[in-house]
Amino acid sequence: MSKKNELVEPRILKGFQDSLPVDLITRKRLIQRIESIFEQYGFAPVDTPAIEHLDVLLGAGGENTNKELFRLESPEGEPVALRFDLTVPFARLLAQYPDRLKAPFRRYAIGPVWRADKPGPGRFRQFWQFDVDVAGAPAVAVDAELVAVMCQVMEAVGAPDYRVLINNRKLFDALLDGCGIEDEARRKHVMRVIDKLGKVGADNVRLELADGRVDESGDPIPGVGLGGETIDAIMAFIAITAPTRAEVVEALTEALPDSKVTAAALEEMRTIAEALTALGVTEEHAVFDPSLARGLDYYTGPVFETVVPTAPQFGSVMGGGRYDGLVERFMNRPIPCTGMSVGLDRLMACLSELGVVRPATTPVEALVVTMGRVPQAETLRLAQELRTAGIRTEAFFASRKKMQMGNQLSHADHYGVPVAVIIGEDELAQGLVSVKDLRAGKEEREDIEDREAYREAGKTGQTTVPRSDMVSVVRGILDTHAAGN
Amino acid sequence: MSKKNELVEPRILKGFQDSLPVDLITRKRLIQRIESIFEQYGFAPVDTPAIEHLDVLLGAGGENTNKELFRLESPEGEPVALRFDLTVPFARLLAQYPDRLKAPFRRYAIGPVWRADKPGPGRFRQFWQFDVDVAGAPAVAVDAELVAVMCQVMEAVGAPDYRVLINNRKLFDALLDGCGIEDEARRKHVMRVIDKLGKVGADNVRLELADGRVDESGDPIPGVGLGGETIDAIMAFIAITAPTRAEVVEALTEALPDSKVTAAALEEMRTIAEALTALGVTEEHAVFDPSLARGLDYYTGPVFETVVPTAPQFGSVMGGGRYDGLVERFMNRPIPCTGMSVGLDRLMACLSELGVVRPATTPVEALVVTMGRVPQAETLRLAQELRTAGIRTEAFFASRKKMQMGNQLSHADHYGVPVAVIIGEDELAQGLVSVKDLRAGKEEREDIEDREAYREAGKTGQTTVPRSDMVSVVRGILDTHAAGN
Repeated sequence: MSKKNELVEPRILKGFQDSLPVDLITRKRLIQRIESIFEQYGFAPVDTPAIEHLDVLLGAGGENTNKELFRLESPEGEPVALRFDLTVPFARLLAQYPDRLKAPFRRYAIGPVWRADKPGPGRFRQFWQFDVDVAGAPAVAVDAELVAVMCQVMEAVGAPDYRVLINNRKLFDALLDGCGIEDEARRKHVMRVIDKLGKVGADNVRLELADGRVDESGDPIPGVGLGGETIDAIMAFIAITAPTRAEVVEALTEALPDSKVTAAALEEMRTIAEALTALGVTEEHAVFDPSLARGLDYYTGPVFETVVPTAPQFGSVMGGGRYDGLVERFMNRPIPCTGMSVGLDRLMACLSELGVVRPATTPVEALVVTMGRVPQAETLRLAQELRTAGIRTEAFFASRKKMQMGNQLSHADHYGVPVAVIIGEDELAQGLVSVKDLRAGKEEREDIEDREAYREAGKTGQTTVPRSDMVSVVRGILDTHAAGN
Repeated sequence: MSKKNELVEPRILKGFQDSLPVDLITRKRLIQRIESIFEQYGFAPVDTPAIEHLDVLLGAGGENTNKELFRLESPEGEPVALRFDLTVPFARLLAQYPDRLKAPFRRYAIGPVWRADKPGPGRFRQFWQFDVDVAGAPAVAVDAELVAVMCQVMEAVGAPDYRVLINNRKLFDALLDGCGIEDEARRKHVMRVIDKLGKVGADNVRLELADGRVDESGDPIPGVGLGGETIDAIMAFIAITAPTRAEVVEALTEALPDSKVTAAALEEMRTIAEALTALGVTEEHAVFDPSLARGLDYYTGPVFETVVPTAPQFGSVMGGGRYDGLVERFMNRPIPCTGMSVGLDRLMACLSELGVVRPATTPVEALVVTMGRVPQAETLRLAQELRTAGIRTEAFFASRKKMQMGNQLSHADHYGVPVAVIIGEDELAQGLVSVKDLRAGKEEREDIEDREAYREAGKTGQTTVPRSDMVSVVRGILDTHAAGN
């Protein structure tokens, strides 16, 4: 097609990534397990196009996302852009199909989103979002359900420990009202400072709530300019902790000013506490934490996020909250919404770090390899027999020079295939096959330095059996591996 | 966030589509089933970014795809474009990671692709592709495995009948060599004409192979300009049919000129025939069909596609073939490849038409609804009990005015939820719940015209049981529905 001197350099864009099997196999299994939990809670899947009209996206996510849009033109010359999240398209959907998507509507969605910001380690210009949202249900019982979903996801993926932190923007509203902080920009500034608590610590938060501070690099960080008494009140509020959710609510009752806003906020927290108990969520796994701020401006009620206490470096692996303003961009009435996002990459990284998931390098459980002149049809017959027995099998076929036995086995090694089924002319004539446990051999070989002993050990885990026993022998090895994990 | 007078009109781009649950639920199940077959045959998943450097895509798909690229600029100002298929990114991958993706490499991929062509009914500017490909295996036994994959997919999705048609570009090469047609452009023209056989019929194909014809709209269609004898040879070749694959090969042996090209082509067909038998693929399900041309220029060996004889209007629901030139765009050596694509949309449409899949409107199996003042925690407790028993459950929470019983049940009707679990104050006090089979009620109600009788019938399928029996009663109704499908 193209001439040899016109080779195209195979490369991808800065800030983008390819997902090879080692990245994708475990991820797909995780996604499937999580989707089935979402469906268990009544969420239905939807999918929207990658490209939206520019005005649908512009302004929906604030200044930063406006700047970070990947813009292009439609074939008709209209200004359009790649979506930067799944929430704005969801809001558009609700407004566009009010008759089909009658409220309350629970949906989940998974797909890539694009942001043209500065890429860095773990920061990509195309990444996946995985969201559940409920539209049209003002009851905070639904927020409690989302917390239960988070817990069940963590159980399903085998997280050894996890904690869902829960707070409510209305509590902050009550607190800041009581402190006389009425200016909206100032209130948001306070929230942003509190959001940094985990990163910078309480002392620095105090400084930023007061007149500001100078960070490690020498840059000045402006302060909110609050007085000492106000700062004390805020710090006391965010430090509240108690063994049970009900006791946190009690402590909050004492810490907050007596007002209508306070009463409403506490009532919501009490409802959530009861709902969590009804849903079987333990006190250990879901904790009321008044210091949880969550950066985003658009939350209006309960907020929640999931952390793994033994792996705090990964931050929150899921997060969400109630937001009521988004759909109003598209229609003349508000639709109360609440939702949460699974941080797939962080969750995967965290589970890998904790040794809960091992990256799988291949789906293949058995590789059928041949020695000498074995008809291709025989290779296929064995492979098909294994597949029919539910064993994921590759039949090895390559260019002639790669058909040597050694190369076939190193192919299995390279991809981490656990079992090789070997058939040669002799075996074929006698109705036999050799089955080789490639892990057993590998582990032993790694400890051997002597060349002769190494060659001998190469036979480890290899056994020759009648063809009629092949499936059960392979299955036995796979079961042993699975038990050993 | 935005003022009411600045509403954004909720809409999508021309040629794009939203997938609502009714479109997506069945589709996702189908994808999962198919992916598990791909993995059974040793294919591993990969995923590549939506955006590629322009030169990676440009020219890889011919004139038309060049014109149809969605182009944009990277944040660094480079010319880039949205991918138009999954095959070119696969070829790029192979060239970019030769050490990690050692040949032979079997991969599957699923994802959206974009083409800025003229949209029409069933023709979209963003659509999904779902591909398997094998790189680095020249043996046509692998092509036979792809045919076996196609058959297994059709079995897994429950297709009542299907047929995989198989041909080989090398047979055409031998035929056209024998006819003395050497000009490459002319050979491709012949292929394109033969590709239209199913659509326009043999008589029109003859005319187009000769001096051309005038189509229904009066437009002239230029012909290839072949002589009568040559046309006879071609028409006889593509008309070859026989009860078995081996007999087709025999007939081909007689119809083709005695040449090296013929010998090689026939040898490939014999190998495929043996391989299919070894793989357990029946003569009925995989047929050698010399008339199968497949439009694409880049095939170099076996080609195959799956059709459903009882639903010919959907054309081929899967298709593929062997292509050897694509990776050469990116590296200095050819990598033999073969692969196939599942036409998800066509397959879904075909299965719906045949009544094999029913579109699911919701994943929800049970909706928990309330009458009167029932604490939210009670609703959640019931929902959670059902979920724990493996029943996908939604707890109904909506705005106050939508909490009337009638509205809750019409919500269930609207989304097609099969079972409602109803709890009122009385039931709560007595430890009871009502379980309502919403399908039973619905079917009967549809035949009733009398208003009073209709109301009475509204109670059909409703039974009040102790809470401890709830799960088994709901499960019983769901099982009855499943058996009735």
